[in-house]
Amino acid sequence: MKETIAALRALERKNYAYTYAQSLITYDAETGAPAESAAGRAEAVEVLSRAQFDLLTDPALDALLDRADEAAGNEQEHAEVRELRRMLSRIRPIPADEYAAFERLTQESVAAWAKAKKAGDFSLFAPCLEKLVEGRRRQAEQIAPGRDPYETLLDQYEPGLTVERCDAFFATVRGAVVPLLEAVQARGSAVRTDFLDQEWPVEGQRALAQKIMKLWGLDPERCVLAESEHPFTDGFNTSDVRITTHYMPRDVLSSLYSVAHEGGHALYELHVDPALNYTVLAGGASMGLHESQSRLFENMVGRSKGCIHLLWPTLNTLFHNQLGGVTEEEFYRAANRAEPGLIRTEADELTYCLHILVRYELEKALMHGELTVADLPAAWNEKYREYLGLDVPDDARGVLQDIHWAWGNFGYFPSYALGSAYAAQAVDSLQKTIDFDAMYEAGDLGPLRDALTDRLWRYGNLKETGWLVESLCGGPFDPKYYISYLKKKYTELYCL
Amino acid sequence: MKETIAALRALERKNYAYTYAQSLITYDAETGAPAESAAGRAEAVEVLSRAQFDLLTDPALDALLDRADEAAGNEQEHAEVRELRRMLSRIRPIPADEYAAFERLTQESVAAWAKAKKAGDFSLFAPCLEKLVEGRRRQAEQIAPGRDPYETLLDQYEPGLTVERCDAFFATVRGAVVPLLEAVQARGSAVRTDFLDQEWPVEGQRALAQKIMKLWGLDPERCVLAESEHPFTDGFNTSDVRITTHYMPRDVLSSLYSVAHEGGHALYELHVDPALNYTVLAGGASMGLHESQSRLFENMVGRSKGCIHLLWPTLNTLFHNQLGGVTEEEFYRAANRAEPGLIRTEADELTYCLHILVRYELEKALMHGELTVADLPAAWNEKYREYLGLDVPDDARGVLQDIHWAWGNFGYFPSYALGSAYAAQAVDSLQKTIDFDAMYEAGDLGPLRDALTDRLWRYGNLKETGWLVESLCGGPFDPKYYISYLKKKYTELYCL
Repeated sequence: MKETIAALRALERKNYAYTYAQSLITYDAETGAPAESAAGRAEAVEVLSRAQFDLLTDPALDALLDRADEAAGNEQEHAEVRELRRMLSRIRPIPADEYAAFERLTQESVAAWAKAKKAGDFSLFAPCLEKLVEGRRRQAEQIAPGRDPYETLLDQYEPGLTVERCDAFFATVRGAVVPLLEAVQARGSAVRTDFLDQEWPVEGQRALAQKIMKLWGLDPERCVLAESEHPFTDGFNTSDVRITTHYMPRDVLSSLYSVAHEGGHALYELHVDPALNYTVLAGGASMGLHESQSRLFENMVGRSKGCIHLLWPTLNTLFHNQLGGVTEEEFYRAANRAEPGLIRTEADELTYCLHILVRYELEKALMHGELTVADLPAAWNEKYREYLGLDVPDDARGVLQDIHWAWGNFGYFPSYALGSAYAAQAVDSLQKTIDFDAMYEAGDLGPLRDALTDRLWRYGNLKETGWLVESLCGGPFDPKYYISYLKKKYTELYCL
Repeated sequence: MKETIAALRALERKNYAYTYAQSLITYDAETGAPAESAAGRAEAVEVLSRAQFDLLTDPALDALLDRADEAAGNEQEHAEVRELRRMLSRIRPIPADEYAAFERLTQESVAAWAKAKKAGDFSLFAPCLEKLVEGRRRQAEQIAPGRDPYETLLDQYEPGLTVERCDAFFATVRGAVVPLLEAVQARGSAVRTDFLDQEWPVEGQRALAQKIMKLWGLDPERCVLAESEHPFTDGFNTSDVRITTHYMPRDVLSSLYSVAHEGGHALYELHVDPALNYTVLAGGASMGLHESQSRLFENMVGRSKGCIHLLWPTLNTLFHNQLGGVTEEEFYRAANRAEPGLIRTEADELTYCLHILVRYELEKALMHGELTVADLPAAWNEKYREYLGLDVPDDARGVLQDIHWAWGNFGYFPSYALGSAYAAQAVDSLQKTIDFDAMYEAGDLGPLRDALTDRLWRYGNLKETGWLVESLCGGPFDPKYYISYLKKKYTELYCL
């Protein structure tokens, strides 16, 4: 019995090593690698992903999993078998060469995307994107023949999520956000934003990022901050989590809330039970759950009055010249202003879901074969005009702004919106036992970290996603909490 | 025939991928990873090194190599077979578990070494070092039973090098350097160094590093500079080379000459024929040859009058306050001062070989079983007193200063001294066709890069080391060129 579990763990450790290597290669590509390094990276990733594929498609694995299923003596062991089977069901139907070629393609695509974005030229990325769309569609067909390919992809990021549920969720959100935004825009002059557009020295922004990391409670021995074009988080294990940010000299809020957001992801990864390290249960569970933690720390914590009050002395020390004549209340309102913009990562809480909706509808249409890559930029621009009332001036600030599709991630975007809704419901529930104001006053987010560890973080992938969502939210998920959170917040902010 | 070569190349590409992943993991550990990340890295490296071991010890490889030997139709294909056989002869005799355990150990050792160095406490590193010495000795015995284990290790870094040749080389060098150093010390007051010990803003040092990289001709799209505790170079392929440096706020020369040194390594890696990428012939040949290029650019170029004259306007712009009242001649002399010091990487050209000699004698004694790890710090301190006339105040500035042993590299250090000697002979020969003064005046090192590409860089591992050394040096290697270079330089500098 013990030998069977040991064999299972050895397999999982190998799987960890291949994932670790490929994640580090991807992390390095965004943070430190030279511009011309993509070809050599693609060679390596093709070999490593193929080796991982071979590991997971070894026919001997079936017998091992059957034996392990019998030998499993506790919840963790059972869950490892369950999670491995789920993983295999998504990898095994794909032909080996196609699998490795796709992984290689993602490396080449990220390089092509970066060049295209820099040049503002979609045509430099389009050939890769065509292959990515076609490849993922084919994979989805192979994994679940006959099923809506987009749903198969959705399910990968948020187990159990369907197109139907997703459509309903976005309809509810849109139905509430659009009139709220209209009301806000009618009274838009209520928020002062003139002081935002000035020079915010990057050294000060770096110090502010460190302050946020400290306040969030991110252990500097286990979590570091790097710089990249597009902020992201990579969690290798509970002792090695990386977050990145991008400093914009004329926008202090961009990096501030990127660090707040990625810091939420990092807290989740750092607080998983270390006993799950190197197993398939390591790391955060679904991407919706992951985004719930990042959005919670970015918005519900980072944009709260209490948190801004706590940061105010630091902000004034670091940006004495920039904040002369700005009140704490004005800064709070500016950080929470609702205003349609072109860039998702800099969007406010209210318009954010509209950015996600654009991507959701477009990637669904791509996967359904209802939209071609050639027509994508025009479709993007049309939706931005329709949902956000904006003309997109160039593809760099339009269809090329996000890295996700270049990574081959279709079906990921809805996680951001779902996560925001999970977070709102979780906070509503947590407020019954945690005095948030007292917590900010004490300058210690420990009570919140403890509660989230207890409800979600420690479990990693041990539990099913549905169970974890309910545990986090303190009850069955319902988007009404998110809607009322937004209504209450923006009604107050804009005196609607 | 073509299929056989294709199979060989596929194998080499796999080998490249495993090497790439492990090199990147090591690079990341030194440049960006959090302090507590060693355990998770060790897990990954153990698996990846084991997979690489399994790849190279597959019994089917023998038949493939035999077929490839027959099918080989050009010099490159023959050389690939030769190099693979050499590689296999060093890996196959080692038991698989021992091989992977040793690779894992090196990851743990580097972390232990870093902590020990920081704390100045050798006892934190000693248990790892004992295992490293024992492991490498056992591997050397397995690779070449009955042969001097240290020689087996030497041969790995500089094919064909023997203990006898090494002893003779160091005896010659020591015989010339010691009296020269005595003469210099008798007239030590001739060089002004008072201005070196002041605050040199790191931002200025960063700009200076970029200036050196540009002057060396390092393509910024293919070569980037990062920061690490201990400067080093990693060449993944001809489009991806990384160099690192360490900025010391009170020492401008340290980073300046680290970048100059690592830049020499990088030039070599970047100029290998791209056709050798992803094969076992990629990258620089022996470590002696590699160090010859780094030492050539650090010393013969970087510390030359012509180069310092070329850098002088930049230095004055970046360090206007620091260099007021310092003449170009004084800076040149200070950069070339000979003075026994505790730290190898900051040593001048004259005393440098004495630092290497200490390490050579100690690691040889460790491998011969004539010195225990417990006695190593005392032996180190004794040799620094004997050869350099210095008392070592603590192990951080003594036996713990270098990372090499923590990486498991025993037999590497002689490469630095040999490389310096190759470089001196190469420059003596190159001066017959290149006008170095005119080159510095024009501010373009192109002629030197072209000549070194022609003599050495482009070949990678295509040729045997002995052939390459002779090609670089313009004739059979003879340390007399190095000795006369040092004598001429220091006689002039100190008016001996």
